[in-house]
Amino acid sequence: MKTRILSACIMLPLLALVFLGGKVLLVACFVIGLMGVGEFYRGFEALGVKPCRWIGYLSALALAGVGLFHGSYPDRVMEYQLYFVWFFAVVLASLLYLFSIEKRQPADAAATITGAFYVVFFSYHVVLVDQSAAPVLVWLIFLSAFGTDIMAYFTGVAIGKHKLCPKISPKKTIEGSIGGILGSVILCGLFGWFFAEEYFVHCLVVGGLGGVISQLGDLTASIFKRKMGIKDYGNLIPGHGGILDRFDSVLFTAPMVYYYIVFVLGFGAGYPV
Amino acid sequence: MKTRILSACIMLPLLALVFLGGKVLLVACFVIGLMGVGEFYRGFEALGVKPCRWIGYLSALALAGVGLFHGSYPDRVMEYQLYFVWFFAVVLASLLYLFSIEKRQPADAAATITGAFYVVFFSYHVVLVDQSAAPVLVWLIFLSAFGTDIMAYFTGVAIGKHKLCPKISPKKTIEGSIGGILGSVILCGLFGWFFAEEYFVHCLVVGGLGGVISQLGDLTASIFKRKMGIKDYGNLIPGHGGILDRFDSVLFTAPMVYYYIVFVLGFGAGYPV
Repeated sequence: MKTRILSACIMLPLLALVFLGGKVLLVACFVIGLMGVGEFYRGFEALGVKPCRWIGYLSALALAGVGLFHGSYPDRVMEYQLYFVWFFAVVLASLLYLFSIEKRQPADAAATITGAFYVVFFSYHVVLVDQSAAPVLVWLIFLSAFGTDIMAYFTGVAIGKHKLCPKISPKKTIEGSIGGILGSVILCGLFGWFFAEEYFVHCLVVGGLGGVISQLGDLTASIFKRKMGIKDYGNLIPGHGGILDRFDSVLFTAPMVYYYIVFVLGFGAGYPV
Repeated sequence: MKTRILSACIMLPLLALVFLGGKVLLVACFVIGLMGVGEFYRGFEALGVKPCRWIGYLSALALAGVGLFHGSYPDRVMEYQLYFVWFFAVVLASLLYLFSIEKRQPADAAATITGAFYVVFFSYHVVLVDQSAAPVLVWLIFLSAFGTDIMAYFTGVAIGKHKLCPKISPKKTIEGSIGGILGSVILCGLFGWFFAEEYFVHCLVVGGLGGVISQLGDLTASIFKRKMGIKDYGNLIPGHGGILDRFDSVLFTAPMVYYYIVFVLGFGAGYPV
């Protein structure tokens, strides 16, 4: 309970960052990716795996760099080529990291790659949405993630009876999960009604999808932490977890909103997305 | 020695596939990616890691699918969005694979992701080069890889004295390595001279880069095999290794040639690349 109120307090300044958007939001995403990938690698270290932190950090910096110059490339294809080379470079660097053959194991490279893609690339979709043709929908990333989390919690406490997936997260209930989805739909719907009228129906749909996928994001983080034998990813506010504990759902809702814009709203067919 | 002559015999039909290009080459790359990722995952299984084969196979199919319809999308940005969603879906599917929490470990997801990117995505750059504005340079991918391999072998046998990296690959020598680079430069140069005159100087440069990077590709495969405790990735021709043993260098030279075309030849700035 106390955690949730405190989390909410951390999230308030975030609203300002989302409102400002553009380069401010990009830098915020960079910081979250940077800290998040460090936390994720630390979790792997608890398993005896040794990912290369520098590759993770530099991958966050490089991705932010491509995003920073959005709009100043000769064309969109060139920008996408830079993203392509990013994927190649992350994998290549992680493989070359194994050349100190006596100190490394294949899992070290695999964990390095996984952290860069799961934490840095996934969270970067916040920037992609902000740079898309429907930047206002960036709010849905956070509204669906936090709406689900908060409503799932209160519904679960109030009427939760049937366990959702006791092996992954023993306290979660089916009732809470449904409440979370409803919370996301309501919050995203209200947002659409008041601030993005032309997307109102889409906001409801994204709210529903976000309610499901943000719980998958939350559970994915729970699985990793359980397997790594850690309670929280980090210790940003002592006793209340790290960056990844706060943003585990956002890692999943951000790509969902982005690909919804591209493939459902159909902006992918034309410049600029 | 016998292996190398036999390998050469396997490579001869490949020449026809490269010559035909287009959809024929795409299907050949798909088959190599499919078989290669299966072999790579089998190597991880020798370490007790259980990657999800289906994700690897489907990722190869999906990537080939995007390539198959190249040119029929409304525009290039839409095509790149499909590649983007491929990157996202591979990682997401590998994470969701962990939801059978009692049977899976984080390394299973990490290995799944690594195989899809290292084998499927890297080898797919053959198709990207073939679909670029300089498709004739697709030959350099194979000429540099096999030129390096063959010349490094003969130079090493003839005058090899100083070990290159005994811990990774005990038989390789510095003399052989230099011979390999020269072999790649000569072969790529000859190709440029006779078949791609307008790119002659670029062929020499790509030959030199390819001579280095194809050896890194070879050594990367050696590291994995050594760590996995296997001699060869597969057993395609009994006693002479699998697909990945034959194409380990190509996995590295293909992206190199592609990004050379995009960023050095500068075709990335304009449609169509």
